[in-house]
Amino acid sequence: MTTKPKVCILGLDPGLGRTGYAVLSGSISSPQLIIFGCVETNSKSIHHERLVKLTEDIKKLLIKYQPTGVALERLYFSTNVKTALQVAEARGAITLTISQFGCPLYEFSPQEVKIAATGEGRADKKQVQKMLKLMFKLKEPPKPDDAADAVAVALCGLARLSTIK
Amino acid sequence: MTTKPKVCILGLDPGLGRTGYAVLSGSISSPQLIIFGCVETNSKSIHHERLVKLTEDIKKLLIKYQPTGVALERLYFSTNVKTALQVAEARGAITLTISQFGCPLYEFSPQEVKIAATGEGRADKKQVQKMLKLMFKLKEPPKPDDAADAVAVALCGLARLSTIK
Repeated sequence: MTTKPKVCILGLDPGLGRTGYAVLSGSISSPQLIIFGCVETNSKSIHHERLVKLTEDIKKLLIKYQPTGVALERLYFSTNVKTALQVAEARGAITLTISQFGCPLYEFSPQEVKIAATGEGRADKKQVQKMLKLMFKLKEPPKPDDAADAVAVALCGLARLSTIK
Repeated sequence: MTTKPKVCILGLDPGLGRTGYAVLSGSISSPQLIIFGCVETNSKSIHHERLVKLTEDIKKLLIKYQPTGVALERLYFSTNVKTALQVAEARGAITLTISQFGCPLYEFSPQEVKIAATGEGRADKKQVQKMLKLMFKLKEPPKPDDAADAVAVALCGLARLSTIK
């Protein structure tokens, strides 16, 4: 017999070409990794069609997992401005989609995400991935990087929801 | 007796705090300025609520004017990265809204917008506003700047649609 998890969080690492996602349930002291992966759009498609495809895929995740909340990383300055602007556009479309779905949205700084995964705000990607592998007893760290980032941000969301409860 | 204009273009200059809009009808040789202005969001509101408010206001414009197409300026690099990221987020949410409404979207580079208004790709804001004032026989240039930019990008859209016809 399975009992419906009381808390379920969808973590997202937004991008136009690839958005990482991860679903966690349970509590911050006993997190369960339900699924992780990426939704992708074709770089040859027209720009606005990519945003539509991306948000339709996010909507499917929202419908399938009915999360208690969605966790997103806050925007931050980047050395690659072109990429940052594309991420921001995808993030805007995703944020609107989540709000229209009526799901609470929690936003975290990159430092908060790293602390949730490793206890260290200056941890690098490799350290985060190594901790996620240990935490969820995985054979390999979650791949690709976008999916691993989504797991880390979902952890932040789970911590926030565990505190609220 | 008024006849329904065959071509009607909505030009937008996206921003999170303020998005300029302008509706033009007619043809590029005889453009008519139907309306221009700004939709605004409160900086004290929660971020994702601002995106919802912004896109609801854009949807009202789409419903009211039923444009043949929507014209948007392409994203470009900016010295103020924080502002650029906010504009990109607003632009992503707006692009999704327009696509969901089923309205054709036309995108133009800043150079194309300046050329449509002044014939000169390196024109500054003041030159663009002066030409818009002359073109539409206005007492003053369209204000604020976001509304003037929206008129200029709508002109680009009108030129594109006049060519397609």
